[in-house]
Amino acid sequence: MVVSLLTDFGLTDNFVGVIKAVILGINPDIRIVDISHEIEPQNILQGAFLLKGSFKYFPHGSIHLVVIDPGVGSRRDSIIVRTKNYYFVGPDNGVLSLALRIEPPIEIVAIANEKYFLKPVSYTFHGRDIFAPVAAYLSKGININEFGRRVRFFKKLNLPAVKISSRNLKGEIIYIDRFGNLISNVDRDTLGGFIKNKGFKIRIEDKIIDKLSFSYAEGKKDRPLAIINSFDYLEFAFKDASAKDCLRLDKGAPVTISIC
Amino acid sequence: MVVSLLTDFGLTDNFVGVIKAVILGINPDIRIVDISHEIEPQNILQGAFLLKGSFKYFPHGSIHLVVIDPGVGSRRDSIIVRTKNYYFVGPDNGVLSLALRIEPPIEIVAIANEKYFLKPVSYTFHGRDIFAPVAAYLSKGININEFGRRVRFFKKLNLPAVKISSRNLKGEIIYIDRFGNLISNVDRDTLGGFIKNKGFKIRIEDKIIDKLSFSYAEGKKDRPLAIINSFDYLEFAFKDASAKDCLRLDKGAPVTISIC
Amino acid sequence: MVVSLLTDFGLTDNFVGVIKAVILGINPDIRIVDISHEIEPQNILQGAFLLKGSFKYFPHGSIHLVVIDPGVGSRRDSIIVRTKNYYFVGPDNGVLSLALRIEPPIEIVAIANEKYFLKPVSYTFHGRDIFAPVAAYLSKGININEFGRRVRFFKKLNLPAVKISSRNLKGEIIYIDRFGNLISNVDRDTLGGFIKNKGFKIRIEDKIIDKLSFSYAEGKKDRPLAIINSFDYLEFAFKDASAKDCLRLDKGAPVTISIC
Repeated sequence: MVVSLLTDFGLTDNFVGVIKAVILGINPDIRIVDISHEIEPQNILQGAFLLKGSFKYFPHGSIHLVVIDPGVGSRRDSIIVRTKNYYFVGPDNGVLSLALRIEPPIEIVAIANEKYFLKPVSYTFHGRDIFAPVAAYLSKGININEFGRRVRFFKKLNLPAVKISSRNLKGEIIYIDRFGNLISNVDRDTLGGFIKNKGFKIRIEDKIIDKLSFSYAEGKKDRPLAIINSFDYLEFAFKDASAKDCLRLDKGAPVTISIC
Repeated sequence: MVVSLLTDFGLTDNFVGVIKAVILGINPDIRIVDISHEIEPQNILQGAFLLKGSFKYFPHGSIHLVVIDPGVGSRRDSIIVRTKNYYFVGPDNGVLSLALRIEPPIEIVAIANEKYFLKPVSYTFHGRDIFAPVAAYLSKGININEFGRRVRFFKKLNLPAVKISSRNLKGEIIYIDRFGNLISNVDRDTLGGFIKNKGFKIRIEDKIIDKLSFSYAEGKKDRPLAIINSFDYLEFAFKDASAKDCLRLDKGAPVTISIC
Repeated sequence: MVVSLLTDFGLTDNFVGVIKAVILGINPDIRIVDISHEIEPQNILQGAFLLKGSFKYFPHGSIHLVVIDPGVGSRRDSIIVRTKNYYFVGPDNGVLSLALRIEPPIEIVAIANEKYFLKPVSYTFHGRDIFAPVAAYLSKGININEFGRRVRFFKKLNLPAVKISSRNLKGEIIYIDRFGNLISNVDRDTLGGFIKNKGFKIRIEDKIIDKLSFSYAEGKKDRPLAIINSFDYLEFAFKDASAKDCLRLDKGAPVTISIC
């Protein structure tokens, strides 16, 4: 049984280690896999985006535990979501919602049963006191309905929307990876539906790109390449260099695709 | 069987991976949990503070392996400490001592039996050559007294002390977490014993705070809140922002609580 | 069964977590040990150096999976190498070659059998789609020859060479660790063969060092010490301080050992 862990806790403090300790104290057979702990503090949308790109690579039956939780200790709900292939556990602040658009909920429960909490429950670290033990008990086969009452709705977030007119598709950079690759909000299907089999030009900064490359190695010196990346988003990269540094761009930078 | 790992080795070099390799070579059934490897180089007190806040969340029987060891290769002792619920393994430089104040030693052994070392033993990486194999053999049930002779004392460290007069309690910031929350050396019991049920004011920088909050979400824009955090220390935070950045404070900054 | 993981993916994105998910989906019994994910982007030689210093501490039978792969999606081969004690899996770009000089190949296979790939195979993330599943199937006992055809050669890299004349040995700094210790390309055997039992002086920056120390603790304030480190390379360090900062040196800085 695998539990994935996605948080904004970083790896310098002891938060992540303590969460793992609590989980293994309840179910020593769990295999814990870190997706990332370096989500920017309180950046729910960044967490939602990484979860969406990661969850389906895990073995069916895995539990995805997400703790990006600026509202900890306030009246926000915490939820367990059962889908066809997975469980998701986290605060109901939208962080699960991009994944749940792909993998729709079958049952949603608002966590309430203190029997499965670590006591005393703090107001500031539900990752340790609520989410970790709930995920661990869930992994032991406790029925989802044991943890609280059924609810019908969960909070939804959206990535920044692309804008499509007859001749232009406008998107923006929403994520930058370690290599400085610039990832846009234009996904494979949206791009394919827009350009069909017509000619096109992609504009980013003052650069015009007129084809999609397959691999980074196709890049030429000082020229950005456009690629549909391994998570199915339109991405801008340089061969052996950082597109972020070469183009001096940051998140929010506009991207325009035009039919020609 | 869980072994926790707390070091100042960072995650860029191969030190931590090699320690884990040695442990699993001796006992493949160990589950290793990282508390942190980002302790500032040679900052024994920071390591002692994180260990104190972490150890009790681990399953009973766990072995806490701590390698923050500026004296490696010199004549400092290395020790195994058996307590009611745990084993602790590390250099005898005080890094275990804050935890051992809460969880007192039952037996202490100075590590000496080369039979349990990785040979040849280097002078500069006892984490790999002594601590890792000793923790791994200990996890296999080797009696603590097999590793060396009994000793009666271990080196003790103290957090910076709070100063209490009839009207004032003076503390300081001793730790800053990833979110920029400022954690003081004033713990829940000390604060409670001082203010009892009287009115109080807390001063940090040029800000006055007259109540304790429960959750970060109670914070108001541009106003710090004071909170007893999930590790039972008085902490200063901003809602959705870094108190360190907002107040421009660092470790050592004074905190004063006054009865009014 | 242990799989070690060495990449330049960092820990902020989800690349490493997804690789682990794929591995555990195929073989849930694997123990994964991270050597490092903080190799500088595309720095094949740095990865090769860390692999060389790490692999032999793992239990025999371990699989070393290395993904530092600037040529991903191009025509470079990917290989599995069987040695006396280990398997190595990675791109054939030299990243395995320093380790294979110590632990020579018995069989080398160019990975080609798509049966063991995750489909659809992307052009930009073979770590997830090829290397992870191949390592996982290999760990389940699939014969190496099932994965592709035998090849006889693999790409070799070299560390910067030391230059030896009758009176001088000239090397350089090739790695700097978290503590700011400066590690040179002069290994224990080369140094021993050169100085034999004669007197010597080591020059780094404007400092002259005339002996080898055993431990960091022997250092004196403001004076660098020279040490044969725990990975058998000549290293420069300061007691409780960073040699990199104290000497203001970086990789490539020259080191000269002279017989006197």
